[in-house]
Amino acid sequence: MTRAAGCPLCEGEGGRLVLRTPRFRVIHAAEAGFPGFYRLVWNDHVAEFSDLSAADRAACMEAVAAIEQAMREHLRPAKVNLAALGNMVPHLHWHLVARYEWDSHFPAPVWAAATRAAPDDRLADVQARLPALEQALRALFPGQSAGQA
Amino acid sequence: MTRAAGCPLCEGEGGRLVLRTPRFRVIHAAEAGFPGFYRLVWNDHVAEFSDLSAADRAACMEAVAAIEQAMREHLRPAKVNLAALGNMVPHLHWHLVARYEWDSHFPAPVWAAATRAAPDDRLADVQARLPALEQALRALFPGQSAGQA
Repeated sequence: MTRAAGCPLCEGEGGRLVLRTPRFRVIHAAEAGFPGFYRLVWNDHVAEFSDLSAADRAACMEAVAAIEQAMREHLRPAKVNLAALGNMVPHLHWHLVARYEWDSHFPAPVWAAATRAAPDDRLADVQARLPALEQALRALFPGQSAGQA
Repeated sequence: MTRAAGCPLCEGEGGRLVLRTPRFRVIHAAEAGFPGFYRLVWNDHVAEFSDLSAADRAACMEAVAAIEQAMREHLRPAKVNLAALGNMVPHLHWHLVARYEWDSHFPAPVWAAATRAAPDDRLADVQARLPALEQALRALFPGQSAGQA
């Protein structure tokens, strides 16, 4: 394990833990207004995607694709947004966000200014789908899910 | 080729063409204030990353990693940002953005509100590095670069 002192993703999970594998973990982000917001956090401290070996990049992105596919099946979003930014926390993590036409920012990115308030009933509907999604996510990585927060 | 009527990334390149391969093309984006902003645009019209086959996902992300690595070498950014959003244009494209502490939005995402004006001399320095970068990018995909705008 490569760890960096003072890095919040080395010193903490980064959110509510959904599952952990030897290479990465999946956490649920607590961003207000986006209940379908997960992050794949690489366990080792690497800054850039291209810092990973080819094998690790393949494992990382096949996991991102599998998580995205499960989000599509369970959350029925209009679009999934993927991003690895890391300007604030340069420890590789992929944002996976289920987006809806009714959400507070659509079609703008979640980092832009909000253009409306998301309806409470729609948010609650997505929220209600998370347990089944997370069960499916843990089933994608059998025998590896050490953590279930 | 899968094309969708009315899709701007089916009906046009999406920016200044740097190179083209059978699966994807790389374009330079014209976003003001971010001279080191490229996009890998998938040639077929697919909306989500997980719509690609495993082989295509691997080819796509190995290209993203190679482009990122070349951007790091030539542009020396503080961080590279990667994102596949597609809320406005649901045709798979990866944003690759060289970010600097002095840029107009750092450390916020490029889609957030600007917090300062980027210095002209710094922008010009990045701009001056683009021809060598783009030559290197074309060399990454030898014999495939049909287009050089």
